[in-house]
Amino acid sequence: MINAEGSLLSQENSILIGKKPPMNYVLACLTAFHEGAEEVVIKARGRPISTAVDVAEMVRKKFMPSAMVSEITIGTEEVQLKEGGVKRTSSIMIRMRKKK
Amino acid sequence: MINAEGSLLSQENSILIGKKPPMNYVLACLTAFHEGAEEVVIKARGRPISTAVDVAEMVRKKFMPSAMVSEITIGTEEVQLKEGGVKRTSSIMIRMRKKK
Repeated sequence: MINAEGSLLSQENSILIGKKPPMNYVLACLTAFHEGAEEVVIKARGRPISTAVDVAEMVRKKFMPSAMVSEITIGTEEVQLKEGGVKRTSSIMIRMRKKK
Repeated sequence: MINAEGSLLSQENSILIGKKPPMNYVLACLTAFHEGAEEVVIKARGRPISTAVDVAEMVRKKFMPSAMVSEITIGTEEVQLKEGGVKRTSSIMIRMRKKK
């Protein structure tokens, strides 16, 4: 999907949450759904995990009651450090879809 | 359950994540399991949500491979402000149990 918010939205409608204001990500979700996506996946690593939950809650409670959370998974990702070694970071994946 | 970490652990083995170091909460989880709990529920509101995910991941990946995440739910809680009005905060609930 090609999108005005291209940098926030990758293939398979996944949105990686970072340090921008939560509303940027909410709008990216809403845009994807309004362009016909059946499903949007919100992902975050580390501190922005709480923002990912905020975004999912704002989408379904405030802006799009026809959207629901269909799956939540947590995990650990290993990031290779330039200076050698590995850093472990927690991650979250929140899958949202339109209610049938 | 009565526990040395009583302040972290309430009835039904639920642990509310706050601003203490993550290891405090990891230890509270491990203690509950080792005292016989079949299930431990990790809860957080707002910023500590990412710590809640860290805690769950540390418990199952590092300290207790026999534990698994059985359910994750997110929600919005409304807190009454003293000065009037309501503040909405996102929350997470991560349910962990021993593998059968």
